[in-house]
Amino acid sequence: MTEHSLWRFSRAIHRALNERQTDQLESVLDDNVDWAIYGPIDMFAFFGARRGKRAVIDIVREISGLLQLHRFDRESIMLGEDSAASLMRFSLTPAKSGHPISVRIAIFAQFKSGRLTNLRAVVDTFDLVEQVLGRQIHLPQIA
Amino acid sequence: MTEHSLWRFSRAIHRALNERQTDQLESVLDDNVDWAIYGPIDMFAFFGARRGKRAVIDIVREISGLLQLHRFDRESIMLGEDSAASLMRFSLTPAKSGHPISVRIAIFAQFKSGRLTNLRAVVDTFDLVEQVLGRQIHLPQIA
Repeated sequence: MTEHSLWRFSRAIHRALNERQTDQLESVLDDNVDWAIYGPIDMFAFFGARRGKRAVIDIVREISGLLQLHRFDRESIMLGEDSAASLMRFSLTPAKSGHPISVRIAIFAQFKSGRLTNLRAVVDTFDLVEQVLGRQIHLPQIA
Repeated sequence: MTEHSLWRFSRAIHRALNERQTDQLESVLDDNVDWAIYGPIDMFAFFGARRGKRAVIDIVREISGLLQLHRFDRESIMLGEDSAASLMRFSLTPAKSGHPISVRIAIFAQFKSGRLTNLRAVVDTFDLVEQVLGRQIHLPQIA
């Protein structure tokens, strides 16, 4: 049985983020990969949409300079023939503050011939922002 | 071919939210359903974890009083035998403000005998908070 493309992609991302080696990532990205991580681009320029292998490698390199990934817990996963959805909790330390934080991320990925063609990621961004700021943002109680 | 449990659940949720009828929802929830929508509970008490059919019906009722759901676009979906993952964009109007907003949500669901046993939802919460406040929250540029 062939290994699912998600595992190759997952290893390639971790190698790129923690070892700053993008060789594996190069080989698992489709040339025209369509990529979006939804979040406040004012705070983190790496949020938002990217198109194409070069742009995605650049953004992963940028992220790799900003944080150290310690571990991730996969809370839910679904694998299709050429697709995957995964709910994860990442433990990481932003280089700037040095304070470890924990972020929940949902990822939807599509592959073609073993290469990533589409990625969408939803992040619990308010929680992320508060953790990075190191303080609570006061919110009115709406309900 | 039997209809996937997700569709029954989806119809039941919409009926509960927009028509405030929870009869269908009753029949698609497992008695011990494990439910969590991650988000700032200070602002919206309906975020967070719930356990059991009664608690989930109460929370859905509460949500139904707070907003009107207009439409949703399914941006990605994966169906397993007893599970589903879906990336959606909801267009809705909070009753309080009357201003329509749009929210991206990732849902991971597990079913048993056609009933929902586990639901996890990740929301782009910072975007949600800003839309509900009707103004931007100033953020420092971190990267």
